[in-house]
Amino acid sequence: MEYIQQNFNVNFSYGVFFSSNLFDPANTCLSSFLESKAEPAFQKKLLVILDGGVVAHHTNLPQQITSYLQTVRGFQLAPEIITISGGESVKNDLPLLFSLVDAIDKYGIDRHSYVIGIGGGSLLDLVGFAAAVSHRGVKHIRIPTTVLSQNDSGVGVKNGVNYKGKKNFLGSFAPPAAVFNDAVFLTTLDTRDWRSGMVEAVKVALIKDAPFFTWMEEKAVTLTAGDMPAMKELIYRCAALHMQHIGGGGDPFESGSSRPLDFGHWSAHKLEQLTNFELRHGEAVSIGIALDSVYSFLLGWIDESAMQRILTVLKNMQLPIWHPLLEMQDGKPSPVIVGLEEFREHLGGQLTISLLRAIGKGEEVHHIDLDLLYKAVTICKNNQ
Amino acid sequence: MEYIQQNFNVNFSYGVFFSSNLFDPANTCLSSFLESKAEPAFQKKLLVILDGGVVAHHTNLPQQITSYLQTVRGFQLAPEIITISGGESVKNDLPLLFSLVDAIDKYGIDRHSYVIGIGGGSLLDLVGFAAAVSHRGVKHIRIPTTVLSQNDSGVGVKNGVNYKGKKNFLGSFAPPAAVFNDAVFLTTLDTRDWRSGMVEAVKVALIKDAPFFTWMEEKAVTLTAGDMPAMKELIYRCAALHMQHIGGGGDPFESGSSRPLDFGHWSAHKLEQLTNFELRHGEAVSIGIALDSVYSFLLGWIDESAMQRILTVLKNMQLPIWHPLLEMQDGKPSPVIVGLEEFREHLGGQLTISLLRAIGKGEEVHHIDLDLLYKAVTICKNNQ
Ligand SMILES: NC(=O)c1ccc[n+]([C@@H]2O[C@H](COP(=O)([O-])OP(=O)(O)OC[C@H]3O[C@@H](n4cnc5c(N)ncnc54)[C@H](O)[C@@H]3O)[C@@H](O)[C@H]2O)c1
Ligand SMILES: NC(=O)c1ccc[n+]([C@@H]2O[C@H](COP(=O)([O-])OP(=O)(O)OC[C@H]3O[C@@H](n4cnc5c(N)ncnc54)[C@H](O)[C@@H]3O)[C@@H](O)[C@H]2O)c1
Ligand SMILES: [Zn+2]
Ligand SMILES: [Zn+2]
Repeated sequence: MEYIQQNFNVNFSYGVFFSSNLFDPANTCLSSFLESKAEPAFQKKLLVILDGGVVAHHTNLPQQITSYLQTVRGFQLAPEIITISGGESVKNDLPLLFSLVDAIDKYGIDRHSYVIGIGGGSLLDLVGFAAAVSHRGVKHIRIPTTVLSQNDSGVGVKNGVNYKGKKNFLGSFAPPAAVFNDAVFLTTLDTRDWRSGMVEAVKVALIKDAPFFTWMEEKAVTLTAGDMPAMKELIYRCAALHMQHIGGGGDPFESGSSRPLDFGHWSAHKLEQLTNFELRHGEAVSIGIALDSVYSFLLGWIDESAMQRILTVLKNMQLPIWHPLLEMQDGKPSPVIVGLEEFREHLGGQLTISLLRAIGKGEEVHHIDLDLLYKAVTICKNNQ
Repeated sequence: MEYIQQNFNVNFSYGVFFSSNLFDPANTCLSSFLESKAEPAFQKKLLVILDGGVVAHHTNLPQQITSYLQTVRGFQLAPEIITISGGESVKNDLPLLFSLVDAIDKYGIDRHSYVIGIGGGSLLDLVGFAAAVSHRGVKHIRIPTTVLSQNDSGVGVKNGVNYKGKKNFLGSFAPPAAVFNDAVFLTTLDTRDWRSGMVEAVKVALIKDAPFFTWMEEKAVTLTAGDMPAMKELIYRCAALHMQHIGGGGDPFESGSSRPLDFGHWSAHKLEQLTNFELRHGEAVSIGIALDSVYSFLLGWIDESAMQRILTVLKNMQLPIWHPLLEMQDGKPSPVIVGLEEFREHLGGQLTISLLRAIGKGEEVHHIDLDLLYKAVTICKNNQ
């Protein structure tokens, strides 16, 4: 039997910029980036897709974007800025996905041009996927406008949409060309989105960075009340930890079963779905972190005071730490807990759940004791 | 302005195996590969998607596959083998794409499991894309059953489907987990598919490997008449050249404009489309190679005898070297030649067309002289 072995590496690299007032004509952060990519021989194109929830609070934004991008040398802005509603519902809408693909086609966005998504994590996941499948992948730039997307989803390498009620069933790994975080957008966030975005920072601190957790303990109350300098620091540190894990963790496209950044997420995904996304992602993850932290305590991995510190941070951020769907329902198993198998299937392979060995140190298990888990649910309930 | 730089490499590797009678219980090529991937902790799953055009000639194949795969240790075969019609039309059928996604969901194919596509390049392009977008990419194995898919499309890293009449508008780069070429399938190919598959070998020899071209000149007549040992050699050498280019050419996922393996393809893609895919891909590429070789001659890049050798090989393979759509139509420009801009857009950036500096040596240009191109059309017509 003859045989040929193929083997090659593909390099991925992108910058994440932290700025304010990106579309102020005096701010050259975005325009310099683009102009550094210009080519003398041809024009590159730009297509902007904008979150309607952002525009509602920044009504001049479409005009500002147009004036700003029209002057970028070497680039031609598509005649239309596409505004779509924001929020999770855009990920449940295949016709909307195809309408973005159609726009990429209509405006001649080729593999040297850029699609720019501006909005929350939902919009960015949708736009990133539309770009990833068009022409076998056109470049995309992300301008995240929520805490969650600035500190986690927007700086990573994944995209996706929901399919037949299954969260992120369709998607891909497609790193952005660049990411621009603009703090000004955060000033208009709904308080629920402001708060719930902080959860990913709690998550990544718990598994990787104890001093960052301690810092958040100190700042939890003022952060929650709207302390912007603290929020900028939280976002920067959280984004950096996520990026280090992706770039330095040895498995950026998640070919193995290990997924430490999903600490607290197995129950969260299911809770989001079961509540029809009335729970925000971060709220659901807050509940998930509480549950898995208490479970870690019941296993004897962390002590009671560590557990209490975790629950207190979440409560100081005014986030939920329990949900009725975690309990048995009329003698039947909790629908969230039944979702463990679905979670395993989405990841593939052996069940792999991150727990805590200490504050700042995650560790994986491949088995969950259901009795102990229901005990953890009760402890969360009583600690609310 | 703060800034974080992300940078990482992703390694891709896969083997291409050349065998015969893959599903003969005595042939352990495929089963050994799978068993080497088994894990003690859990079962992996297999879902087979089969080309109806293959089954029409190998009616026992579904049963053979079932018996063969049911005995592979560590793997569980989905209860259904999915047979779909083969040929280009499967790439024009979005509901069919989603029905494969549904099957991946229904049969619990996770990121450790395998989708196995068995069929021509069209089926493999469709199946590879369905796998690539499900769960952000489930693994797929390709078992190509045509000359073209065994020597070119099946051993590469691309997949895709057509969208709104645009060839491969939706697609991705997603290397297979492994490829198994089984020569026995080729015995039942339609003569048009047998012949047209050889064109990719002529193409890659012309741009990279003069001795291989000379070998094909000698073998053209017997190859065309059905010489299987020669065909196996042609496929092996052609696959190896394609794989070397992808793995060693520095741009496996085609981020630049350079695309030497697309020699002869700019007009071919348009001709396939304009003839509603009544021209086979290889037939269209044969015409495209003839046109671009003659154009290279008119530029003074190759001499007349080299040009004649190329046209003769294609004619000895009983392949077309001209098409009426290449000519002006009632005083209007040829619709194929108008398609040059569409080709540029699909690739992005500057127009980049491979031509020939010599037999065995491709070179790119960024400009095409239309008068000269119409002259080349006429020369092709007169040389048929
Ligand atoms: N790709 C990944 O790696 C990854 C990681 C984590 C989460 N996610 C996904 O991210 C999504 C959640 O994203 P999100 O939390 O950013 O919420 P979101 O995108 O759903 O937005 C929430 C709401 O805020 C509005 N909004 C956005 N920016 C605003 C602003 N600056 N001012 C006022 N309103 C604004 C939106 O219109 C929407 O109504 C989920 O679908 C989740 O699965 C993806
Ligand atoms: N992904 C890539 O890199 C790449 C490269 C080149 C071409 N392609 C694509 O490949 C497609 C063409 O593939 P193809 O030439 O293999 O043809 P095909 O897949 O369209 O098949 C042609 C016909 O042969 C039948 N068939 C397949 N195997 C058979 C067998 N062993 N015996 C009898 N009949 C058989 C099919 O059912 C079909 O009717 C095009 O869509 C082209 O764009 C992709
Ligand atoms: Zn999250
Ligand atoms: Zn081809």
